[in-house]
Amino acid sequence: MSTPLPPRLASFHANGADRYGVVTPEGIVDLLPEFGTRFKGLKEVIEAGAIDELLQAAEGRSPSYREEDVTYLIPITNPEKLICVGVNFPSRNEEYKDGQAAPSKPSLFIRFPRSFVGHHRNLVRPPESEQLDYEGEVTIVIGKGGRRISKEKAYEHIAALTLCNEGTIRDWVRHAKFNVTQGKNFDATGAIGPWLVPFRNAAQLDDIELTTRVNGEVRQNDRTSRMMFDFRYIVNYVSTFTTLAPGDVIVCGTPTGAGARFDPPIWLKPGDVVEVEADGIGKLVNGIEDEQNAVN
Amino acid sequence: MSTPLPPRLASFHANGADRYGVVTPEGIVDLLPEFGTRFKGLKEVIEAGAIDELLQAAEGRSPSYREEDVTYLIPITNPEKLICVGVNFPSRNEEYKDGQAAPSKPSLFIRFPRSFVGHHRNLVRPPESEQLDYEGEVTIVIGKGGRRISKEKAYEHIAALTLCNEGTIRDWVRHAKFNVTQGKNFDATGAIGPWLVPFRNAAQLDDIELTTRVNGEVRQNDRTSRMMFDFRYIVNYVSTFTTLAPGDVIVCGTPTGAGARFDPPIWLKPGDVVEVEADGIGKLVNGIEDEQNAVN
Repeated sequence: MSTPLPPRLASFHANGADRYGVVTPEGIVDLLPEFGTRFKGLKEVIEAGAIDELLQAAEGRSPSYREEDVTYLIPITNPEKLICVGVNFPSRNEEYKDGQAAPSKPSLFIRFPRSFVGHHRNLVRPPESEQLDYEGEVTIVIGKGGRRISKEKAYEHIAALTLCNEGTIRDWVRHAKFNVTQGKNFDATGAIGPWLVPFRNAAQLDDIELTTRVNGEVRQNDRTSRMMFDFRYIVNYVSTFTTLAPGDVIVCGTPTGAGARFDPPIWLKPGDVVEVEADGIGKLVNGIEDEQNAVN
Repeated sequence: MSTPLPPRLASFHANGADRYGVVTPEGIVDLLPEFGTRFKGLKEVIEAGAIDELLQAAEGRSPSYREEDVTYLIPITNPEKLICVGVNFPSRNEEYKDGQAAPSKPSLFIRFPRSFVGHHRNLVRPPESEQLDYEGEVTIVIGKGGRRISKEKAYEHIAALTLCNEGTIRDWVRHAKFNVTQGKNFDATGAIGPWLVPFRNAAQLDDIELTTRVNGEVRQNDRTSRMMFDFRYIVNYVSTFTTLAPGDVIVCGTPTGAGARFDPPIWLKPGDVVEVEADGIGKLVNGIEDEQNAVN
């Protein structure tokens, strides 16, 4: 990373319990003992508008755990909604080679939280397919809920940022007439994390670099300023049909260069390491393993 | 109904609280006072395998509320997953008139619980569209969870049955390149209920009649024995990619005859009444209102 990251919030498992706390350069300050009776998890922290309270509580404290001694969870373990935006960077539509014009509205689909693992966990390749693919994406977490939120006020409704490897089982995405549901919802095939970076100003989103690497090789690289449907549009559009709630997670689309687009395609395999990195948010790192070896 | 319904479980709001209980011919026996500390709602009842315990507890008791004095909620208010099957009755594929062959796998999409209301509540037509349409569907609720559940054992994993009016905003279904997400997720545009009928034997599902009426006129009528992907197949197929959990809701597909298929289409409008009825499950009844008049 070019600039050091600000203090950030993470969900993790350690010492027999699901916990949350603040990640600092020295390690993780566990805040469950102090805040656990008030907030079950980070969704409840966001609902209460208590992100700053947690950051302040962690200031000057020594870490409770070293990063390598915890198991990261997805930052919001129990979102009311987890919505993904498809086909949202230039040339992504052309990658489908179906002769259709670029869509005038974003494609949206829904994933279940159990289709994701946290930072440093392995993505799980199921026995049903060899076509496990990566998609690096910037991800927003809703703070203040609302319906029909205007584009002008959209950023006021974003509490935090994170990253997603929106891992996909490609052949199952096109099983049916409509909808990508099944190929996007195999257990533990994607990742969200590493943590939540509080969102404080537009520069954190408007034009940041997003990069996906497989085994160190850059596969996807683009800037959010080139998104076809920007973050303000997405918050406005999604909230037109559904009331957004605190802790809702929106995964905002991936640049060109997923493994499916190579000729021949390059699928992820056990031993590979995928990194999704964005300016000011951090780097989400996940290995790959076959399901028989999975510890879930 | 041709035969009287067995005792059944419902979620409802009354006297300032969300409650659950047993529906009898005389009224509703509220079981929250007795079981509330053990079970927050019917999902937790199912998780604990306690359906029969509740039915027994209600036996011989006088009702706490008359049906007309409660507000029905969707039976499982907080499912981990709510999955819908598309294009699952003969001739439904032909209705799309796109020249494509019938699909070999079911189309699946996901709805958020807040896109549904309970029995006797009005569906809400949003100002963004006049194309509110009905789809009557038999709905199963998972009891015992699992992954890769065989077709042979599928019925052992179903705890209860209910009905769904899988109300849809038609023009928003095709907003984007893939996926029907937005047209299927406008707040309060569908309904689930009226209640949960415990599932005890195959005859409750294998060949039951499903009928949708609008203002008393039959619009959809078919039998579950004609489904392209039957209930056993659906449980098996869905559990291939995602671990099913107790209380998961699967809405299993609608017969031909939705309003969109008429020429010209016939959309639902304020004042209409839609009934979805199936043998042995009951009759789900909902009116329609415009959003400005909505009480949500």
